[in-house]
Amino acid sequence: MAGTDKTKQPAAGGGPAVVLVNPQLGQNIGTAARAMWNCGLTDLRLVAPREGWPNDWAVKAASGADLVIDAARVFASTAEAIADLNHVYAASARRRDMIQEVLTPRAAAREMRRQAGQGARIGVLFGPERSGLTNDDMVLAGRMIAAPLNPAYSSLNLAQAVLLMAYEWYQEGSEAPERQVIEGVTGPASKADMMGLFEHLEAELDACGFLRVPEKRPSMVRNIRTVFQRAGLMEQEVRMLRGIITCLTQHKG
Amino acid sequence: MAGTDKTKQPAAGGGPAVVLVNPQLGQNIGTAARAMWNCGLTDLRLVAPREGWPNDWAVKAASGADLVIDAARVFASTAEAIADLNHVYAASARRRDMIQEVLTPRAAAREMRRQAGQGARIGVLFGPERSGLTNDDMVLAGRMIAAPLNPAYSSLNLAQAVLLMAYEWYQEGSEAPERQVIEGVTGPASKADMMGLFEHLEAELDACGFLRVPEKRPSMVRNIRTVFQRAGLMEQEVRMLRGIITCLTQHKG
Repeated sequence: MAGTDKTKQPAAGGGPAVVLVNPQLGQNIGTAARAMWNCGLTDLRLVAPREGWPNDWAVKAASGADLVIDAARVFASTAEAIADLNHVYAASARRRDMIQEVLTPRAAAREMRRQAGQGARIGVLFGPERSGLTNDDMVLAGRMIAAPLNPAYSSLNLAQAVLLMAYEWYQEGSEAPERQVIEGVTGPASKADMMGLFEHLEAELDACGFLRVPEKRPSMVRNIRTVFQRAGLMEQEVRMLRGIITCLTQHKG
Repeated sequence: MAGTDKTKQPAAGGGPAVVLVNPQLGQNIGTAARAMWNCGLTDLRLVAPREGWPNDWAVKAASGADLVIDAARVFASTAEAIADLNHVYAASARRRDMIQEVLTPRAAAREMRRQAGQGARIGVLFGPERSGLTNDDMVLAGRMIAAPLNPAYSSLNLAQAVLLMAYEWYQEGSEAPERQVIEGVTGPASKADMMGLFEHLEAELDACGFLRVPEKRPSMVRNIRTVFQRAGLMEQEVRMLRGIITCLTQHKG
């Protein structure tokens, strides 16, 4: 496979290539491919997969991420798989007896985004399920990526390791808001909407005698208003609540 | 299972309970348990798992996270599974036809840490593999969690969804540095170490004639020093480099 001009293709969209070194199980390759496509990555490279390639288990586990599976390329060695890349990272849970810079997936994603923005081609190495990357493969990478995880159990499933890296890559480039309200056809209630609700409710509560003790009325009104203020109501919900009030009072009558 | 005092146990360590609603495959339960324990979570709750419980596939896929599998509790309904919790989130890739606040996993993790810090018990609902949570289960949750992902392919494998939430929970509480150098027995080189290296090297380069053109010497020295400065050398590496210089010059002689 090496030496074909396939290796000259850029990583699609500037996203990092995912290089699985000697993956053992087709299923894990498939799940990794799915995680990649979840995060918009498409450049999957396999170094001597144990079960050979193509692999039916991989297709099944990819669960629709065929685009990644179909474009996967097989290489005989890690060195050949990364020959066209400018920056290579190695994912590993194990500390090695070598001097190497270790980044969290988040810090690595930030660095990769910067490098990709400068036109660099990037890849991340992931080792075989049981043993992880060899030290010789680690040395091919400029930096190591290790996620802060439970020190008592930090070994990730292969596809899970791929997901965390791909996820952080995607988040770093995402402009999605951290918090939003699904609004449907409605929007947040205005203060006028809220005042309309309060006046409607309090008029009915005055009428039915709920607020009949004058010295308690101010604090009771405050407590009621607080509940609805805190709920962060949508305009449509205010209309619904006013409908409920109307219905309850009419029923009573 | 419902109604036993097991439901009164607090979520271990204040971490969120992971509530898998009608999970279809034992393997996915096991992989989810592994992801939980990777991130220090232990409170796994299963609502009517399709294959029953206990499940050998789950044990196998948990790959050593037996602690989570052994402590898993089974409930007949989602409502029973969350009865002891104060705050419940629902993980979903699908937008629903209801008004609900949607958080990214990161924003949700920040909020959960705050809630847990106030002593609240928290849980996250995950729906069955094929269909996701029903709208009735969604309503049991105060907020929805959705990861920003490839809009063309945003559906995560069940265990992957659990991992992203658990991972963000762990990161939010982690004080691990984003970037560190594995140092072994050594530490970063001091400026004195670096000057020693430069003077050693430049003396040898003067001796061998590499720096023989006087007007070029200053810029050549700067270029050489820049390379080693940029490398961010450790003290042990400086010693190694000086050993190399000595060896090369002795060999030449």
